[in-house]
Amino acid sequence: MAKQKPRTLSGFMELLPTRQMQFERMTELLRKSYSLYGFTPLDTPIIEASEVLLAKAGGETEKQIYRFTKGDSDLSLRFDLTVPLAKYVALHYADLSFPFRRFQIGKVYRGERAQRGRFREFYQADIDVIGDGKLDIVNEAEVPSIIYQTFTSLGLKRFQIRVNNRKILNGFYAMLGLTDKAGDVMRTVDKLPKIGADKVREMLVSEDISATGEQADEILKFISITGSNCEVLHALEEYKNRHELFDQGLDELNTVVKYLGAFGVPKENFAVDLTIARGLDYYTGTVYETFMTDHPEIGSICSGGRYDNLAEYYTDKQLPGVGISIGLTRLFYVLEEQKYLNDQLITSPADVLILPMTDDLSPAIAFATKLRAAGVRTQLYTEQKKFKQKMTYADRLGVPYSAFLGEDEISQGKVSLKNMTSGEQRLLPVDEAVAAVLKALETNERTAPIREPEG
Amino acid sequence: MAKQKPRTLSGFMELLPTRQMQFERMTELLRKSYSLYGFTPLDTPIIEASEVLLAKAGGETEKQIYRFTKGDSDLSLRFDLTVPLAKYVALHYADLSFPFRRFQIGKVYRGERAQRGRFREFYQADIDVIGDGKLDIVNEAEVPSIIYQTFTSLGLKRFQIRVNNRKILNGFYAMLGLTDKAGDVMRTVDKLPKIGADKVREMLVSEDISATGEQADEILKFISITGSNCEVLHALEEYKNRHELFDQGLDELNTVVKYLGAFGVPKENFAVDLTIARGLDYYTGTVYETFMTDHPEIGSICSGGRYDNLAEYYTDKQLPGVGISIGLTRLFYVLEEQKYLNDQLITSPADVLILPMTDDLSPAIAFATKLRAAGVRTQLYTEQKKFKQKMTYADRLGVPYSAFLGEDEISQGKVSLKNMTSGEQRLLPVDEAVAAVLKALETNERTAPIREPEG
Repeated sequence: MAKQKPRTLSGFMELLPTRQMQFERMTELLRKSYSLYGFTPLDTPIIEASEVLLAKAGGETEKQIYRFTKGDSDLSLRFDLTVPLAKYVALHYADLSFPFRRFQIGKVYRGERAQRGRFREFYQADIDVIGDGKLDIVNEAEVPSIIYQTFTSLGLKRFQIRVNNRKILNGFYAMLGLTDKAGDVMRTVDKLPKIGADKVREMLVSEDISATGEQADEILKFISITGSNCEVLHALEEYKNRHELFDQGLDELNTVVKYLGAFGVPKENFAVDLTIARGLDYYTGTVYETFMTDHPEIGSICSGGRYDNLAEYYTDKQLPGVGISIGLTRLFYVLEEQKYLNDQLITSPADVLILPMTDDLSPAIAFATKLRAAGVRTQLYTEQKKFKQKMTYADRLGVPYSAFLGEDEISQGKVSLKNMTSGEQRLLPVDEAVAAVLKALETNERTAPIREPEG
Repeated sequence: MAKQKPRTLSGFMELLPTRQMQFERMTELLRKSYSLYGFTPLDTPIIEASEVLLAKAGGETEKQIYRFTKGDSDLSLRFDLTVPLAKYVALHYADLSFPFRRFQIGKVYRGERAQRGRFREFYQADIDVIGDGKLDIVNEAEVPSIIYQTFTSLGLKRFQIRVNNRKILNGFYAMLGLTDKAGDVMRTVDKLPKIGADKVREMLVSEDISATGEQADEILKFISITGSNCEVLHALEEYKNRHELFDQGLDELNTVVKYLGAFGVPKENFAVDLTIARGLDYYTGTVYETFMTDHPEIGSICSGGRYDNLAEYYTDKQLPGVGISIGLTRLFYVLEEQKYLNDQLITSPADVLILPMTDDLSPAIAFATKLRAAGVRTQLYTEQKKFKQKMTYADRLGVPYSAFLGEDEISQGKVSLKNMTSGEQRLLPVDEAVAAVLKALETNERTAPIREPEG
């Protein structure tokens, strides 16, 4: 028969079992973190009616959409989890209680140009808190504490959450009489780390934006405010009482910083950073970006912020919210590239591989049943192979333990338990063997999927 | 602004939070069950190149495919998890260890005619064991024990796994000289429960199949063999030594039944059933179907079997396997319809809702942090609302506990903990409150998502 060459599309991540297990461990910990903060899991379709999904879209996004017809229906694959959330909340408004806190971890699709580290199918892991009409500022302080707890539980230590407030930026530009140009100015200022201050100034006074030299200097002075959170907040006091929006933003930022301490976020993992703007017009208050301290070149690994109107394309209801998103597939890719994946994590499909040495498998099956009842992941190896091939299999899977049941063991009601890491083998009564494995696995339960390389 | 009416496509399941939580609990328990048996999680793309995905397909299936072009690429959404598995194993053959045991829980797509209880996007939950060249028969006995353990852990009790062997059927038809017509005969026999024996006989002797009257009688006699497993196996002995394939199938069935007891599957959850054939030509040995005892009309809720050649469209390698699949979305739909979903399960986003009664939120935040550190899902309610509205919110979420922190509580280092089910409220030191909640939640950990209605 002619064979079809098997292949996986480029831009689509497909992992080998070991890596997949590490990825699963990450999503499991994300689910756990998000649940601890009272977010409910949600799952929405990957396919939506195009007119619903694209109610807002336009420009770059729309070009990337996977859009097609099936029968009479014009369909599209979701390109993020925010638009489906907006649809969900507008559609099920009457059945939801507000604030509505949901998390969603799911695949989204963007037909980007294929290149290393860019994915067309990728996981996003989002949380959002949606208010009905109003939403208290405390939520904006809790969100970075969730980012902190989440990355910490994954095993990442050297990261920093940078926080700003769009009202401070918009208020500041209003003071300068640059409100109409605030978007362009912020996009230009965003380029500061890449092109430097001189080039930014040049662009600000150029025809496109045509700020005055004085305005440009004010802007550069403003975004060069750096230092400890306390120093930055202090420097901002200087601008007070000149514009209401600015004052409101500064109040909010002060509140967020104050409560962040109470939420237990250490100072080194958190910084007020006036250059964080988030491109989208969507955000209206606190904004977040998160950077790996040793890899700033990767860009933000978790971003988000406060918005005033989640679902304006679907409903008249005012639904303010605050949310963040982690691009999980890209993060995983980067962690592997940078050797941040913890190879101490058990990634084998089973904790114990049982190798029966007798024709009658009943004792081996009984031992497997006992281990499984105790919660130990167990595989019976029953293929007719030479002993050496069986051990090679155990090694390749990376099982932490193998167990042998021969005539001798069975007649004594014991098993030979081999620690595959140390090579140590012990003859143990069945129950003691189960207990020994359970004890050893306890440590792995706490093993994080990320381990930072030694500096 | 003109609004786009929000809607979800028909045939696409989108659950409200309570139901979603029950669904998540089911998938969590499936993952846990499959993992206990040494299966590794896998995740493959939802989109594949059409020529890869449809290497085998044809007929009814192909019509249902979501197929489209993006740029120059001819793409299709996966319609099951077996074809992607075949591709995966053929593609990554050199990196895998055999037997390769994987589970996958994921969405698949079929453009079926929309009707109640039929879904176009639905979850399948599959396990497969793939051998390289050979695969031991014990795997075929272990699979029903996994079905048993899985449904039991979900809370289902009244179900029966029915087992047959295609070699017995094929051998039997060979004895009758009906090998060429075996497929048609089996499809006709499959209709027995629906149309009755007379009608089946009529169809067998009709032009389409044109069996002789004697052959038809033999067939009806054969498939009317019923009784206990022991009785059925005994009756089959009569047919022995007439055809090699039949004898091999009977041997295998005897082995499977023998080991099923060792694997701990109770007699009442398991039956040899000679009418089970599984339509697909794909299966070559043991075949399984699973029925809810009180709802046979639903059809099989978990089916599968042994096949000799997983990936023949992609590789020359002989890759025999055994697997099963649960149509999770449909099962969930049916369980809800039949009122099998356990409403005792905690489905609220949080276990404790904290209601701060003071302006300074720091003590409430500290209590929340303590609860979360202990693994308790906790939400802080900080919106400016009347007390009564806050309690309505707690009620609507269905949180098992709420906690109040006013001046009095804070000055004493205590919290008022309210059991929302009993209404009982106690003033407790912070640590005791955490312990009380933890103890109460232990029970829920063991609560199954399915509860059978009292007969």
